[in-house]
Amino acid sequence: MRIALLGGTGDIGEGLALRWAYHTNHEVLIGSRDVEKARTKAGEYETELDSRGVDVKIKGFANEMAADRAKVIVLAVPPYHVADTVSSIADVLSDGDILVSPATGMKRDEDGFHYHRPGAGSVTQLAVDAAPDGVSVIGAFHNLAAGRLANLDADLGIDTLVVGDDDDAKEIVSDLAEGIDGLRAVDAGSIANAAEVESVTPLLINVAMNNPGLHDLGIEFK
Amino acid sequence: MRIALLGGTGDIGEGLALRWAYHTNHEVLIGSRDVEKARTKAGEYETELDSRGVDVKIKGFANEMAADRAKVIVLAVPPYHVADTVSSIADVLSDGDILVSPATGMKRDEDGFHYHRPGAGSVTQLAVDAAPDGVSVIGAFHNLAAGRLANLDADLGIDTLVVGDDDDAKEIVSDLAEGIDGLRAVDAGSIANAAEVESVTPLLINVAMNNPGLHDLGIEFK
Repeated sequence: MRIALLGGTGDIGEGLALRWAYHTNHEVLIGSRDVEKARTKAGEYETELDSRGVDVKIKGFANEMAADRAKVIVLAVPPYHVADTVSSIADVLSDGDILVSPATGMKRDEDGFHYHRPGAGSVTQLAVDAAPDGVSVIGAFHNLAAGRLANLDADLGIDTLVVGDDDDAKEIVSDLAEGIDGLRAVDAGSIANAAEVESVTPLLINVAMNNPGLHDLGIEFK
Repeated sequence: MRIALLGGTGDIGEGLALRWAYHTNHEVLIGSRDVEKARTKAGEYETELDSRGVDVKIKGFANEMAADRAKVIVLAVPPYHVADTVSSIADVLSDGDILVSPATGMKRDEDGFHYHRPGAGSVTQLAVDAAPDGVSVIGAFHNLAAGRLANLDADLGIDTLVVGDDDDAKEIVSDLAEGIDGLRAVDAGSIANAAEVESVTPLLINVAMNNPGLHDLGIEFK
């Protein structure tokens, strides 16, 4: 499958790009608002993979071009750019395309990080509200530590929570997740349940800040 | 140590009472607004433990009496009774006593369970606001499946998140948690971080509802 990572030059985009290119046969496209940046990072990912004996082509594009060429489009952008990113690619989306939202809203204070819930209910819901008819939105990959994901020497052995209202799209995204070695997709229900999923991200950061032994951590449901 | 479980006749109270009585030498007191109910349940817990070869005395009391006799008092009551339960025992609390809040606020709709955040910021904060000076509040045991906890044949191998602003009290409660076989205490920081901890509970229920293989589940940070 062809997967576009919009904001694929950022840290979570890098981790997903490297993992999919390393562990699967999916074709990964890197999108950015800045096409030169997309190409540069795509080249860096190729070099990293080549150093591990994986000869794979990763192309960089402007977000709209990347989205146009892919079936699954991951919105690996900050939460305040989710809605405008979806709007900016709306014209090139086709019926059956799938948008994946991994972003979460957070605020930091002296105690730690806190979930900053958008008025819409969740960041995932912002993507739903901005998506054209016929395009499903799935929330996934919220709770993965970017550094661990991007380090191909690091074992995962953790879960990613998946929410969505379209069972077929949810299954496709869950399969993509489980294509990554050591990652299990766990169904957390519908989009309406996204806030509880997104709020795990600040919790993980708080736990990392308070427990020297737990760095770049994830969760396993058991 | 002597631990009072207020609302200790309910499901999470039962689990903690059985586990502490089974795995540790702590003295467990069962509190209830209805002293007869407290005594009846305490007797049931004794019978359960006796059937496993553990000869231990568990006494039932009215909440106020149980709180008066204990150093650590667990508020194993529904979230809307946390503040009034603390107020009802305020006169018998002493400097250095520790209140433990495991409750979380939830609402259910057709999609699943959702965190219902109190205006105070968290249910744990409600306990803080109601507690007399000199009495510390620690949030813990929010994310444990009551049925699994109460089944002494069930392995745990999971974590409980602990929040609090008093490091000594947090350490005492973390030690109590880790006295239970298979339970690890994970520090999630201060009381201000309690909402993200409490919101894991509806998430766990949603995951259990959507994954046939994940029943009475917990989480491990890794």
